[in-house]
Amino acid sequence: MTIYTPLSLAQSLLRCPSVTPEEGGALAFIEGVLREAGFEVHRPVFSEPGTPDVENLYARSGSGRPYLLFAGHTDVVPPGDRARWRHDPFGGEIDGGELHGRGAVDMKGGIACMMAAALAFIRERPDFPGSIGFLITGDEEGPAVNGTVKLLDWAKARGERFDACILGEPTNPERLGDMIKIGRRGSLTGHVTVEGKQGHVAYPHLADNPIPHLLRLLGALVAKPLDSGTAHFDASNLEVTTVDVGNPASNVIPAAARATFNIRFNDLWTPESLEGEIARRLREAAGNAVRYTLTMEPTNAVAFLTEPNDFVRFVADAVEAETGIRPKLSTTGGTSDARFIVRHCPVVEFGLVGQTMHQVDERVAVADLDRLAAIYRKVLEAYFPA
Amino acid sequence: MTIYTPLSLAQSLLRCPSVTPEEGGALAFIEGVLREAGFEVHRPVFSEPGTPDVENLYARSGSGRPYLLFAGHTDVVPPGDRARWRHDPFGGEIDGGELHGRGAVDMKGGIACMMAAALAFIRERPDFPGSIGFLITGDEEGPAVNGTVKLLDWAKARGERFDACILGEPTNPERLGDMIKIGRRGSLTGHVTVEGKQGHVAYPHLADNPIPHLLRLLGALVAKPLDSGTAHFDASNLEVTTVDVGNPASNVIPAAARATFNIRFNDLWTPESLEGEIARRLREAAGNAVRYTLTMEPTNAVAFLTEPNDFVRFVADAVEAETGIRPKLSTTGGTSDARFIVRHCPVVEFGLVGQTMHQVDERVAVADLDRLAAIYRKVLEAYFPA
Repeated sequence: MTIYTPLSLAQSLLRCPSVTPEEGGALAFIEGVLREAGFEVHRPVFSEPGTPDVENLYARSGSGRPYLLFAGHTDVVPPGDRARWRHDPFGGEIDGGELHGRGAVDMKGGIACMMAAALAFIRERPDFPGSIGFLITGDEEGPAVNGTVKLLDWAKARGERFDACILGEPTNPERLGDMIKIGRRGSLTGHVTVEGKQGHVAYPHLADNPIPHLLRLLGALVAKPLDSGTAHFDASNLEVTTVDVGNPASNVIPAAARATFNIRFNDLWTPESLEGEIARRLREAAGNAVRYTLTMEPTNAVAFLTEPNDFVRFVADAVEAETGIRPKLSTTGGTSDARFIVRHCPVVEFGLVGQTMHQVDERVAVADLDRLAAIYRKVLEAYFPA
Repeated sequence: MTIYTPLSLAQSLLRCPSVTPEEGGALAFIEGVLREAGFEVHRPVFSEPGTPDVENLYARSGSGRPYLLFAGHTDVVPPGDRARWRHDPFGGEIDGGELHGRGAVDMKGGIACMMAAALAFIRERPDFPGSIGFLITGDEEGPAVNGTVKLLDWAKARGERFDACILGEPTNPERLGDMIKIGRRGSLTGHVTVEGKQGHVAYPHLADNPIPHLLRLLGALVAKPLDSGTAHFDASNLEVTTVDVGNPASNVIPAAARATFNIRFNDLWTPESLEGEIARRLREAAGNAVRYTLTMEPTNAVAFLTEPNDFVRFVADAVEAETGIRPKLSTTGGTSDARFIVRHCPVVEFGLVGQTMHQVDERVAVADLDRLAAIYRKVLEAYFPA
């Protein structure tokens, strides 16, 4: 059986140009390595009108419980202008102790560490009680329609039941060991449109300028914090992300004005309760004279929390043992596929250092790859005691 | 000598498709009629890089003083969708006692009345002491670059000196006789841009959303009236005409936000003093933390007033004698070429009823044409007493 280091696995993955929705050879590489180690591997392709077909991978070793799942994605965001990179973004080159390439930290590096840890664990404990699985999508950075959600449903339909999951997103802001994510805020986007009455600026009494009305409504949305946070969450936050009128004529009072806002909300809210609060604030600010509409976009990003339990403690202990740092249990940052996984089993997120993700010269310290693989290995050992 | 009625003159003018900057035969028609009546007629064409060449007309009868000038424009705004017109917008058709067509009230109808009045007066009083002139541009509805401003300069360079001017814009809101304009507010346009710092909505502490800052700055602009009006002017008024961010991504805090405002201001202000007031309001609202820029567009629209004098009284008396209505002396509405003429001589504006101007089915009551011509005739008689 071939012995794979985290670095060699990461290099192989980085050399696959798997910009969403391209598979780029990345899943095929994982399939080959896992099959060789005795995993049963599936490669479901999901389709949806209006989006590209996407390849995914599901693999399992063992048939018993408990079942620990490693989750992640092999697709990457585009490298942008390659001339600005110091090294080929798909070259897997090492320079000064760092592995360079798109996906080095988000999150082919993390997948390489999971694979190295699982392979070594299974090699040493081939008769471990339980199951280890991989749930890898190629559609996390894109529309995320033909990825984790469908893959989980597909697995559930096959009768797969998971007991815990580690998602390998880059969770550490500064140093490996800084932060485990045990939940995520939800995300809700809404649009407010105020209808006024168009007219000439010289005759404002014959018109009704929607802009001052919209300013007042938006002011009411941001005037008061939504909450002051909870035990594990920061305060919910609303940002007005755009205001657009598009009136090129400075002698014309426009007919309508539009704004969009996004809320990152904690476990005090559901999308429904938030919409109610937003609607109430707008109603109070508008009074009777203002005609406006509020439209909320559908969201699948609700706030969730994995209460700190034994599994969370296993991960935190492993991180501390390997790095000397007690990781912060956090719910900060954007959304992730963890919001889908949590519907099936408790999930924590721990991976590499995110500083260079989505940037030119994305890279990871080779030493971090080794330490992350060691952390995952320690989690397996704690989860499946001998 | 041909006898022209206001209606026949107006019909001939309406049949010329003189959408800015096209002459459309309108000035040629006026030239022919005025030459026949003994006017000296000039047809200067003005040019400016980046704008179309525009034809203009200047005509004078008599060589003495005082010199009364009729001013106006033959260019019209486009008719838009002709299928929506009940009659050909360039057909000069009469229907139900009304003359239909683009320019019927703005302001070929007014020019027809001026011409009819002047021709009849000169026919009856060929030896009147003084001069009667016409200053007609083809560039009032367009960029207004190669029109009245240059025509006035051209006349001044020829040694022409005017003592009073009637501009024939449609000044009456409802009925002929409602309103004489003895001044106009100024117009000043400005732009405010706030620079923030772009970022992800999930990490607002790493970004600086410019939108709330801009909302606060705009709020400060509209919070307090600029003034409460003067003897002859309404209060100055500021309208925010557009706000634009153009951020399509609801998970991104934008880098900058822009707004445009327009102020219609009275004789308490100059563009310079207004800019100072705006800058002060923004400065106070911004504090030290907000990076913003204020840019004012150059303006040639300052507030002006023709103090009610004998000439204004002649016009008001003529209106009242003919219509039974004592006209309001007003400074309301948008800007007009009067703001340029006032640099050369006192100017009042009186013309037809503006209700249908710039609209589909622009039209004028034939009776109004006759009465407006009679009013202009009475002004001439009062101005040049026998």
